Amino acid sequence: GLEIRIDGIGNVVGLRAGTEPGPPVMTGSHIDTVRTGGLYDGNLGVIAGLEVIECLNERELRTRRPLAVGFFTNEEGARFAPDMMGSAVHQGALELEAMLDVRGIDGARLGDELARIGYAGEAPVGTETAEAFVELHIEQGPVLEREGLQIGAVTGVQGISWTEVTITGTSNHAGTTPMSMRADAGYAAAEIAVFVRRLVEDIGGAQVGTVGALQLAPNLVNVVAHRATLTVDLRNTDAEVLADAKARLSTFIEELARREGVAISTRVLADLAPVAFDPNVVELVERSARALGLSVRPLPSGAGHDAQMFAPNCPAGMVFVPSVGGLSHNVKEHTDPADLEAGANVLLRVLLELANAP
Amino acid sequence: GLEIRIDGIGNVVGLRAGTEPGPPVMTGSHIDTVRTGGLYDGNLGVIAGLEVIECLNERELRTRRPLAVGFFTNEEGARFAPDMMGSAVHQGALELEAMLDVRGIDGARLGDELARIGYAGEAPVGTETAEAFVELHIEQGPVLEREGLQIGAVTGVQGISWTEVTITGTSNHAGTTPMSMRADAGYAAAEIAVFVRRLVEDIGGAQVGTVGALQLAPNLVNVVAHRATLTVDLRNTDAEVLADAKARLSTFIEELARREGVAISTRVLADLAPVAFDPNVVELVERSARALGLSVRPLPSGAGHDAQMFAPNCPAGMVFVPSVGGLSHNVKEHTDPADLEAGANVLLRVLLELANAP
Repeated sequence: GLEIRIDGIGNVVGLRAGTEPGPPVMTGSHIDTVRTGGLYDGNLGVIAGLEVIECLNERELRTRRPLAVGFFTNEEGARFAPDMMGSAVHQGALELEAMLDVRGIDGARLGDELARIGYAGEAPVGTETAEAFVELHIEQGPVLEREGLQIGAVTGVQGISWTEVTITGTSNHAGTTPMSMRADAGYAAAEIAVFVRRLVEDIGGAQVGTVGALQLAPNLVNVVAHRATLTVDLRNTDAEVLADAKARLSTFIEELARREGVAISTRVLADLAPVAFDPNVVELVERSARALGLSVRPLPSGAGHDAQMFAPNCPAGMVFVPSVGGLSHNVKEHTDPADLEAGANVLLRVLLELANAP
Repeated sequence: GLEIRIDGIGNVVGLRAGTEPGPPVMTGSHIDTVRTGGLYDGNLGVIAGLEVIECLNERELRTRRPLAVGFFTNEEGARFAPDMMGSAVHQGALELEAMLDVRGIDGARLGDELARIGYAGEAPVGTETAEAFVELHIEQGPVLEREGLQIGAVTGVQGISWTEVTITGTSNHAGTTPMSMRADAGYAAAEIAVFVRRLVEDIGGAQVGTVGALQLAPNLVNVVAHRATLTVDLRNTDAEVLADAKARLSTFIEELARREGVAISTRVLADLAPVAFDPNVVELVERSARALGLSVRPLPSGAGHDAQMFAPNCPAGMVFVPSVGGLSHNVKEHTDPADLEAGANVLLRVLLELANAP
């Protein structure tokens, strides 16, 4: 019973009329996944949104404001960068034309691929406003499971800093080159990875840091590496603390280059400020969970989500349900059916309250 | 004018008769190279040996003992493992039949490939004795150039320990997984690389250590690595000190696995004891260099060479000439023509003295 619109970046939004006109209270998420992804990342928020609509249809309940369920193109950024592309275009944070010209890792043009699969829609982008946006998603981390909680009321999204570091030293024989005459790019890379851990421990709190990718060249047992590339992923909910962490990493890299006689260059791969969700929405999620007898806590999201693209423009928030073992982007990703149901029920209550508010 | 023999592993030896019968004084090296190798590694010792023969032929000089120049199959081990295969089979340290069955990195059988290129020879292996063996080779390291010396009198070959380390942790989201709940294989790998440097600095002297190869999986910016593999190359001229370094690495790895909650397994890729060359040959190389007005010092070899396979069976030694910038296994490998000539002249004097000794 939804009125379906497909926009120029392929976002699909289904609208259910309210008793009054005006912008809809929206929910939704994404249906794309990473190649090794599981069942729930994204899909849960879309299916649960449709379940809310079906539930209201069955009971012939009409809300004051319209309701809308969307799935947004390319949240993962697995084939085309950047991620959260559809929701960003939808909310005017990225330009449609520029995104249609983006080339994928296979060289394909995004606009051509949208046309090929029949999702180069007619609906305008960047103009559709929402009264509010609330997204149900799996936590993708271990906190709720570890604490035995059923619901997370998401307070915001961590700021994310991705830096690619390239170290250039000198390739040399591992047996014949005295230690004092080496410019070992591999050793310098290892020092950075160890420094990131020390930095995160020193900052403490919500700070996390990861060196997830690291390559050496020529990558041979008996050759001192002449080149190393690695990535540093730093995240914090506090923008100032995150900026401090980035500055300390830069200082360390400069000192390391001098000390080890290597050249080090850095490139920013991502730099997203922390996002704070609307305190009223966070409180509404907590209250709705408690009203259903569910255990709940506020917590930040370590990952990016479509909801954060709405946050600058309307009250926005998220509902998290536990991820077994904290696993995500993994075929073993799992959330117990009871938790899926609990999350959908919280979403229902939150949407109803927002859509029926005076 | 040489009498050429090709043996079962493809070694080619050219014999020049002496005035008396008996085992020859041998020289030679190898003509195989690594894929990115330069002009001199191996080839120099073969060409210089032939130059010595030509020099004697032109002057119609005959030595008391026979002379022989060889080039030995597969010194590098680039396609078929292990390295120094031809000289090892020649000197009875490896079994011919087992080596013929070795499969290359492309799946090819060594014996089949020798037959295909016409180098599955008839001459027997493991029975040919040498009166002495002396090899001219580039240093492949920076010591002679740094010290402004023309000749190295090689005292022996460092003991070599190659260990492959495999670390298994848990793949997790880099944003959503608290630091305290990680089992980060990539971090553990970096800690090992940094430890190897600290260990080498602590031991000092001739100890060297290198982590030249390191891979992470899944090797993504925003995923904690679940697996890391790296190699540790440790070398020392002193067998006891090298054994101690290996033991300290093992202890560190055990502690690290416990501390980081990862599983770590190790595999020995190579474990070669240090080789000492014959002191009389070392002294003869020094004396011959000085007699030619060349600057010389004794020094150990950080790399393995064919000469070390002869060392258990006859007086053996080597002559080193400088490598510009210490570069080797690199297309930029270079030795100045004057140094090539100086090395060949030292080789000539050493071979003449050994072949004419009473």
